[in-house]
Parts: sequence; structure tokens; C-alpha cells
Amino acid sequence: MPAYATNMRLKFPILALILEIITIILFAMFVVYEDGKPAHHATLDNSTHEELLPMNLYPMFQDVHVMIFIGFGFLMTFLKRYGFSSVGVNLLLAAFGLQWGLLMQGFWHMDNGKIKVSVEKMINADFSTATVLISFGAVLGKTSPVQLLIMTILEITIFSINEHIVVQILGANDVGASMIIHAFGAYFGLAVARMLYRPALRNGHENDGSVYHSDLFAMIGTVYLWMFWPSFNSAIAEPGLTQLKAVVNTYFSLAACVLSAYAISSLVEHKGKLDMVHIQNATLAGGVAVGTCADMDIEPFGAMLIGLLAGIISTVGFKYLTPILASNLGIQDTCGVHNLHGMPGILGGLAGIVAVALGKKEGGTATMQAAALASSLGFALVGGAITGLIMKLPFWGQPPDQNCFDDSIYWEVPEEEDENEESLAHGDHSKNKAEV
Amino acid sequence: MPAYATNMRLKFPILALILEIITIILFAMFVVYEDGKPAHHATLDNSTHEELLPMNLYPMFQDVHVMIFIGFGFLMTFLKRYGFSSVGVNLLLAAFGLQWGLLMQGFWHMDNGKIKVSVEKMINADFSTATVLISFGAVLGKTSPVQLLIMTILEITIFSINEHIVVQILGANDVGASMIIHAFGAYFGLAVARMLYRPALRNGHENDGSVYHSDLFAMIGTVYLWMFWPSFNSAIAEPGLTQLKAVVNTYFSLAACVLSAYAISSLVEHKGKLDMVHIQNATLAGGVAVGTCADMDIEPFGAMLIGLLAGIISTVGFKYLTPILASNLGIQDTCGVHNLHGMPGILGGLAGIVAVALGKKEGGTATMQAAALASSLGFALVGGAITGLIMKLPFWGQPPDQNCFDDSIYWEVPEEEDENEESLAHGDHSKNKAEV
Amino acid sequence: MPAYATNMRLKFPILALILEIITIILFAMFVVYEDGKPAHHATLDNSTHEELLPMNLYPMFQDVHVMIFIGFGFLMTFLKRYGFSSVGVNLLLAAFGLQWGLLMQGFWHMDNGKIKVSVEKMINADFSTATVLISFGAVLGKTSPVQLLIMTILEITIFSINEHIVVQILGANDVGASMIIHAFGAYFGLAVARMLYRPALRNGHENDGSVYHSDLFAMIGTVYLWMFWPSFNSAIAEPGLTQLKAVVNTYFSLAACVLSAYAISSLVEHKGKLDMVHIQNATLAGGVAVGTCADMDIEPFGAMLIGLLAGIISTVGFKYLTPILASNLGIQDTCGVHNLHGMPGILGGLAGIVAVALGKKEGGTATMQAAALASSLGFALVGGAITGLIMKLPFWGQPPDQNCFDDSIYWEVPEEEDENEESLAHGDHSKNKAEV
Repeated sequence: MPAYATNMRLKFPILALILEIITIILFAMFVVYEDGKPAHHATLDNSTHEELLPMNLYPMFQDVHVMIFIGFGFLMTFLKRYGFSSVGVNLLLAAFGLQWGLLMQGFWHMDNGKIKVSVEKMINADFSTATVLISFGAVLGKTSPVQLLIMTILEITIFSINEHIVVQILGANDVGASMIIHAFGAYFGLAVARMLYRPALRNGHENDGSVYHSDLFAMIGTVYLWMFWPSFNSAIAEPGLTQLKAVVNTYFSLAACVLSAYAISSLVEHKGKLDMVHIQNATLAGGVAVGTCADMDIEPFGAMLIGLLAGIISTVGFKYLTPILASNLGIQDTCGVHNLHGMPGILGGLAGIVAVALGKKEGGTATMQAAALASSLGFALVGGAITGLIMKLPFWGQPPDQNCFDDSIYWEVPEEEDENEESLAHGDHSKNKAEV
Repeated sequence: MPAYATNMRLKFPILALILEIITIILFAMFVVYEDGKPAHHATLDNSTHEELLPMNLYPMFQDVHVMIFIGFGFLMTFLKRYGFSSVGVNLLLAAFGLQWGLLMQGFWHMDNGKIKVSVEKMINADFSTATVLISFGAVLGKTSPVQLLIMTILEITIFSINEHIVVQILGANDVGASMIIHAFGAYFGLAVARMLYRPALRNGHENDGSVYHSDLFAMIGTVYLWMFWPSFNSAIAEPGLTQLKAVVNTYFSLAACVLSAYAISSLVEHKGKLDMVHIQNATLAGGVAVGTCADMDIEPFGAMLIGLLAGIISTVGFKYLTPILASNLGIQDTCGVHNLHGMPGILGGLAGIVAVALGKKEGGTATMQAAALASSLGFALVGGAITGLIMKLPFWGQPPDQNCFDDSIYWEVPEEEDENEESLAHGDHSKNKAEV
Repeated sequence: MPAYATNMRLKFPILALILEIITIILFAMFVVYEDGKPAHHATLDNSTHEELLPMNLYPMFQDVHVMIFIGFGFLMTFLKRYGFSSVGVNLLLAAFGLQWGLLMQGFWHMDNGKIKVSVEKMINADFSTATVLISFGAVLGKTSPVQLLIMTILEITIFSINEHIVVQILGANDVGASMIIHAFGAYFGLAVARMLYRPALRNGHENDGSVYHSDLFAMIGTVYLWMFWPSFNSAIAEPGLTQLKAVVNTYFSLAACVLSAYAISSLVEHKGKLDMVHIQNATLAGGVAVGTCADMDIEPFGAMLIGLLAGIISTVGFKYLTPILASNLGIQDTCGVHNLHGMPGILGGLAGIVAVALGKKEGGTATMQAAALASSLGFALVGGAITGLIMKLPFWGQPPDQNCFDDSIYWEVPEEEDENEESLAHGDHSKNKAEV
């Protein structure tokens, strides 16, 4: 029995149960319900919130929740034989990550030694898992569930430190988290991917691609992310007109981004055709890039310019940059998170510097915005590299090259009807079935 | 022409139209709009609600609505050739059931001889259909639409009686309906399944299984149920901090449940692999099990312990108990509702007894909680057995054994592209196409 | 290289980018954030709204947003080889259309020379795209992205003129837009389809049909439209009890419609089977038909009667009328929008005339309601015919007959696994792969 099989059999369930039990103990010690009594509670956003009814943000929370579990989960189902892992492991990591994130973020903002769970804290807990899910995209198909649980713990812990520095210490603006979630998650994941470089996959892998219906499943993820991104960027904005502004900016940035992503996809592809990879991803870059500025007075047309540019950068990145990263830098970025979250996240950070410099937001300085971007990238690259080294340790059950991008190494996969019927006639599916 | 074909041709449309016309007549007699004037209106929850704006609960309603129509509907699409029936008949039963449920529940709470429709009544109407959809899971693939419409009428009527006894007479707590919806729906369905036992399917059926993409469709259902379960458990809770508590408890119970479901699935499966059946279902058991206690002061860690336990029980049930029920008791539970709704529902009821005994909720006594659980199980088993006997009558067009789990008996099913192309070469698909 | 390939290569990206840049310039000149200061702002609904918190309608907006992007997009994925275009071009047209719609609608209601973007304006912008997406259904599979962008500009412009006439000048009621969106969009699209008549497709096309899983993807669209239609019909109703009334009427109309659609489908089909085309579409006709009356005192049973009738008309239309339109009138209506939006939209308009005549709504007269219906149909037919003629111009890259209903003309389509494996044995897929 190969090592990675043994690993799943024993290491995965033991690790999962131990982590959950530790988490429950920490919850028993530290976590209580929100009681509605005023207290200093800070958030990703550094604005002072007026007193709110406890359930006011709940619809926003549910939109974010859908993005995390349906959006990220299905976006990654584009691979032909990795859909179970995409949506299933996404669920696993996010379910654990939100518990861990609530603790890690909560420890910075205790109230009489307790973390009081409000809807806003649940939104922030969901947000913290987004970093992991972005990084997951970079290493999709090449990592075991055990490795990914390790990454979840480390990444969310490091994220919470950087978030605290950016928001509380630097006092920077990042309401839609272009820097502290998107750029952070992307470069963290890319650093991990670099550490886990697989020379044998230099020329691709037969399962590293889509089939017709897997691309349609992925569009479920894309469209949900696209629709609810205004909620992501505005959920923790100051209530009222500022929150509306964050919604409006994101709505129009995304709309403009669709046009540029489609135009550039057609322009760079063979015979002017559209490429599903671009449509699934680059149409979302406008949501990422407008994040930092979402609650600033950039006006709708300013948001649209950011979206237009993000769609162009992202599509060009998929076409020309991703192959270079893989061949020259040894960074095999399965989902192209560099193009969807990395570069648009940096664009968002830069736009934020400019917007603050131009006085589009009260509070914060351009210097602090720049420091926030640098901090996010620094923590991501260093944290990701260290995490990648830890994940490379030989006992986490990393899948062998030939089993990458294949659910059947970690899942019971049903045999296809046609396969059954054809198996008598010709046996060329047998290598797929004999996995593990 | 076989009997079940004749049945669909005449009996189904006639029954559907007659039921709808009777329903419209009853609506004309009894149902009016909510007018905002105060009146005694009781709900699943026995707490007194403060006066609300009429649309306040609407986002919660829509979350529940998505659970009923997308969640339950797609969860059952896991079968390889039964997706049309799963999502289509789910829509049919729920669309009829919500009308019938509004009447059956409303008759207990008339206001000047009228049922006034509010958003809360719509939530409760949707809830009442959930019992039917749970039972549908137990008999999925083995019943005709006509049989299922009969089941819908009877089950919702019996549900409404038990609900009235539990909430109004016993004064028991069951805000998330672990007992009156989940345990009730599961054991009702199991009793029906027992009555409809098919010895010929003892050794399985070739269509009683999934294919790769049908499992992904099912995950759409799973994830939507998982995400919106906090709304299910809190929709009719007392507004404000109590409702927040129900959200928080469910959120964390579900998160903990994911970890234990994954861990146990890997532990009990061949070579440590994960089983999609477990992931699709057992990850939701935490939502079921925390239902009764959702609005009680069990603290987040208490909710997590319930979720952890529910995930374990549910996964173990799928692995070991379902086969025993089928082989020893003659209960062929297609979707394993005993594991997702039955045992976790009882766990929820028991947790409620303990929590009330420990003083975690004002109002109610442990004895009344226990009586509520017993009442729900009693009505379910007796009501389900009688309903099953009625459904067994020979003129409802029950499908023959060989046509079970196959859409083509009730639906025009498109011929697959490959089939067309291959049909010249070899004719072994012909039996599928010649159905009915 | 054929003309339509050249077209995509150059014309599509240039057109898309130019349109977006023009739109951004117009936004820079005219569009600002809502500032909360009172101003005259009119809507599809002519009622006077009380002052609202700026984000109150946001959950309603998101429901409508899901209908536009998931609902319409996935509803059209039923075609076996046209899913990328269905959901992808739907995203493109709606993303551009919402920007254009905001301008076209906003120009009628400027405030100091500016269009102030509120959530209500975003809902109306989304609404305006619905007309295009309905018309898209009539010409699905037979038009190029360039043609469809042209249609988007023209149709939304004409829609905005008719909307202004109906709501502001005639003072007619159409809260759920049976007339100004559904009937308008359908007959506009049918007029376009007539202009683009393809005699060579008289006997069908091998790709103009579904496969099993494409029908399931389409059900995602159906169920989302069905669930959120109460939001569509009530989003811009007067807040409070009137909005609740619109929700309740739509909820029950849709429920009744499901029963009649299923019944009639079974009644008219071979051996009493259900037809997925009917279920995917006719179950929604109740939402269309109750639109105009949604906020009127028609009582729940009145709404149900409208829904019941709409389900019958729609199903019968699919079965008997669509073939006649195609063979006798040269109108090839791919998705059957005449049955889902056309006839039910007219039914809605007629029901509105009757309801206003019966005094079920304060404000408006039956004459004005009739004039509104006539205006909507007139603008649709004339506008659609002119638009169709423009779309027929030879330089928009309309696809040749044999490439209709096939994504591979505009998209990079992954080669299927089976195809690869079987290609050695027999080469009969080669014609599909060599497209364009």
C-alpha cells in the first residue's frame, strides 16, 4: 500500500478530529454570544460603526457565505476529474477555517477575555477562509487534504497578524480587502506552489484540463462570485450611504470588467474565439481590484476604469504570464490565482494609494496604504514560503505526480456507465480505475 | 400498454388539476392578505413576537425557500438516471405542499375565520413541505408522482396535527424543528418505505447509484442546505439576540459536523478514501441535530459538540446501519434519510430535553420536550404506516421493479449523443431507450 | 478563414471596448452616487415611495440579480452544445445592458443634470436587461455576440422609451412588468427572429436539442427564477403591506402554475410522460402573468387562478403553437419565449385591465392599462423588426446554418475524454472538432 494511502487512512481522520477537539476546547474557553452591550470591537474596516440591530448584516453575511462555499467551491470544478475535491475540500477547509479564523481574529479584540460572536464576526471569519481558498487554487490538484489542513491553520494565523497590523496599527483602508485577502492569498499560495514545484509536471498532465460540463459547473462558481461581490466589498463598510457607495462601485467595476475580459480574450485567442478560463476568472478581476477603493469617493466611472483595467491585466496574465511563471520560475499556478487575485489585488492596493492621496477618503494616508500593501505582500511571500516548506515534509501524504488532478486518490469515484459497458470491448480505462 | 403508463396519462393530470382546484376554492374561502392588525398568531415557535415590519423576515424566507427547492431538489440528483424526477418532482410536491401546508397550519390559527398570509406563514408553509421532501428521499425512485401527491396531502395534514400538539398543547421548544420536521419526516418516510418494500431490489438495482457529474449536481444541493441552515433554524426564533443565537449555534454546529463527517468517512472507507454519500449528507447532520436547542443558551462550544456527534452518528449510520435496515427490516432507504434526518433528529430532541432540564431556555419542561419527541415519532410511524398502505393500493401506478430509479418511465428523456452515434455499432443501450 | 471567424477576431473586441469606453465617458458626465437628499425619482412603479434607508432594498436587488445572471443564464443551457454561450453571452449582455439601462432609464429622471445611483436604480437597470435576455432566448444559437450587442443597445433604448410612456405618461400599473418587460421582450425577440428566419433550419438542427445533464443545468435556472420571482414582482412595489401583497400573490400564482403545467404536460405528451421543456418553462408562466396585478387586491385565490391559467396556456403553446409559428410564420423561437413570456405577458396585461376596472387598485384606469399593453406590443414589434433588419446586415458575423447551436464557433471548447479515446477507433466526431 503506497504511503499516501496509509496517510489518508490514519493521518487525515486523526488530524481532523484532533483539530476540531482543540478548537472546541478553545471555544469553550473564549467564545460567547454577542450580548448587544457596547464594547470596543474593531473590524477589517477601521471605521466606527453606529449601534446596529444584531441581525442587520445577516443578508450580507449570507451573500458572502455563498461566495465562500458555492463561489470558490464550484469555480474550481473546471478540472475534468477533480470536482469532488474542488467543492468537497473547499467545504472542509472553509468549515475548519471559519472556526480557526474566528479565534485568530477574535484574540486581537477580546472583550473581558471573551470573543463575542456577532454577524460581523461571522463575516470576518468567512473572509479569513477566503485567503486559504485562494491559495488552494494555486496548488489545486497537487496537495493532500492533510497538507491543506496544515496550510489552513498557518495561513489564517498569519493572515490575522497581517490584518491586525494593516487595520489597527497602520490604520490603512482596505474595505474590500484587495490587499489583505486577495493579494495576500494569491502570493501566499504562489509561494507555497513554488516550494512544492513538480518538475515532472512541466509539460502538463492529462487531467489538468476541463471537459464541457466541468466548465459549466465552474460557471456556477463564477456567476455567484460575480453577483455577490458587491456584498463582499461592502459587508463591513460603514452602514448607510458609505455601504451603498461600496455596492455601487463594485457593481459597475464588475460590469466594465466583463466587457474588457471578453474583448481581450477574443483578441488574444486563436481565431478570435473566447476562452472559458478567461471568462471564468478575469470577469471577476474588477471585484478584486476595486476592493480597497470600494468605499471611497472614486465615482462610478472611476470604479469602471479600475474594472476595465483589471479585466485586461487579468486576461493578458492568463494568456502570457502564467506559462512564463510555470516554465521560468517554477510556479505552477493551477487556477491562475496570480491573474485573478494577485495582480488585481496589487492593482487594488495601488488604486487605494492614489485615491487616498487624492483625498477620496477621510482617514488614512497614502504612505500607510503603501505600507499596508508592502506588509501584505511580505507576510504572504515569507509566510507562504515557510508554510510550503512545512507542507513539503514527507509525512503529509502529498500525491505522486501521476495521481495529481485526480479525485480517485482521495475519493470513492463512481465508475461511469459507459466505462462499464465498454470495458468488455476495450480495456483502456483500466489505468484510471486502478488508482490507489 | 402497461398499467403505470395509463396511470400517468389520465390519473396524474386529473388528480393534479382536481387538487389544485379544490385548493383554490379553499383559498377563496379562507385565505386573505396579512393586514398588519394585531391578532393572536402562533407559530412553530411558542415565543411571543414583537410587532414586526411586514417584510422583515423576507430574506430569511428566501433562504428557506432555496433550501426547499434547490437544496432538497438537487441533493437527490445524485442518482445517475433520476435527476429529472429528483428536482422536478421535488418542485411539484413542494409547490403543492406549500399551499396545502398553509391551509392545514392556518386552520389552527384562524383570525375571524380567515388565514392571514404573512411572511412568517409562508416560512411555515415551506417548512411543512420539508417533511414531505424528507420522506420523498426514503422512497426516491420507487414511487409514482400520483403516489407522492397522495403522500403529500396525508403527511402535511398529519404533520400539522402533531405540530399543533407539540407547540400549542405541550408547549415544547423546537425552533429548528429537529423533532417535528426532521425526525417526523424521516420516520414517516421510513414507515412508508417499509410498507412499499420490494424484495426484488434486495440485491440493489443497476440504476441505484451515481455517476461523476450526478454527484456534483447533488453537491449543489448539499452546499445550499449547509449554507442556509442557520436561516432554517432561526427563521421563526424570537427576533433580535435570540435569533442571532440560533444563527450562531447552527453556524458552528455545522462547521464542527463537517470535520467529524470527513474524518469518520475516511476512517470507515476502503483505503481511507472519502465517500461522496457521506459528504453529501452527513455534513448536514449538525444542522438537524442542533435544531431543537438552536435558540437555547448552549454556548457555541455546546453547539459544536452536538454537531461533532451528529456527524459521527450520521456517517456511521450510512456505513453500517443502512444496509442492516434494508436486509433485516425491509426498509430500503434510498437517500439514507434515517442517517441525515432520523437519528440526528432524535439526537436533537434528546439534546433539547437535556438543555431544558439544565435551564438553558426559559419556558418548557424536560418532560414536555420528551413528550414532544415521543409524539413526533408516534405520529410519524403510525401516520407513515397508514399512508404507506394507502400508497400501496394498486391503482396509483407504482413503477415495476425493473423501472425503478429511472426517469424515462415518467419523463421524455433525451437520447444521449454517444448513444446515437454508437447505436449503429452495438445495440446494448436499446433496453434503456425502450422504457415504457 | 470564413467571414464569421474574422469578425470575432477583430469586430467583437473592438466593438466591446468602444461601447465600454463610450459608456464610461457617459458615466463620468452624468452618473453620481445617491446622496440621500430628497428628489423626484420615479420608477417602473408610479407610486410615491416613502423615504427609505439606502440599503433596505439590497436583498431584493440581489434576488433579482440572481434571476438575471443565474436564472436566465442557466435556463438557456438546455441545449446540448450551447451552454458556454448561454451562460457566458448572458453574462456579457447583462453586464453591458445594466450599464446602458442605467443611462437610458436615468436620462428620463435626472436630478440637477445627474443620475443618482440608488439600489432601486440598480434594480431597474437589472430589469432593463431582462428584456434583452428574453429576446436572446428567441434567437438563441443563431446569432453572433456582435449581433447581440447591437440588439442590446437598441432594445434597451426602445424599452426605456416605452417604459417612460407607460409609467409616466399613461400612468399605468405594471409593478411586475408583465407588459413592459415580458410581453415587450418576447415580441421584440420574435420580431427579430422573424427577420433572421433561416429556411435551412426548417427541419431542425442536430444540435437543437438537449442531453440529460444539459437539462439538469437548465433546471438550476428554472428553479432560481421560480424561487425569486416574488422578489422580481415586488422589488419596486410600495414598501410595507403592498410589497407583501405582491410577494404573496406571486408566491401562490407560481405554486398553482406548477400544478397546471405538470398536469397539461402529462396530458399532451406521449404516454402521459412529462416533458422537460414544459417543466423548465411553463412552471414560470404564473410569475409572468401575475406581474401587472401583483400589487393589486386580487386576493390569493385570484392570483392562483391567473397562475393556473398561465400554466395551461404556456404548456399548450409549447406543444401546439411553437411548431406552427416556425412552419407557417417563419418564426423560429429557440427557447419558446412566446410561451413563457409572450402569451403570459399578454394575459398579465389583460388581467391588469380587468383588475383595475374592478377597482382592485387605486390609481390608473382600465383604458390606460389597455393603452399600456398596446404601446408595449407596438414598440416591441416595430422596434424588434427594425432591430432585426439591422442585425441582418452582412458584416455582424451571423453564424452559418450548419454552425448554429454550437459553442465551438465562438468558444474554445475542450475535447471530450471519450472523444479522445475513441478517436482512434472511429473518426465520426471529426466534423464537430473541425468547426471554424
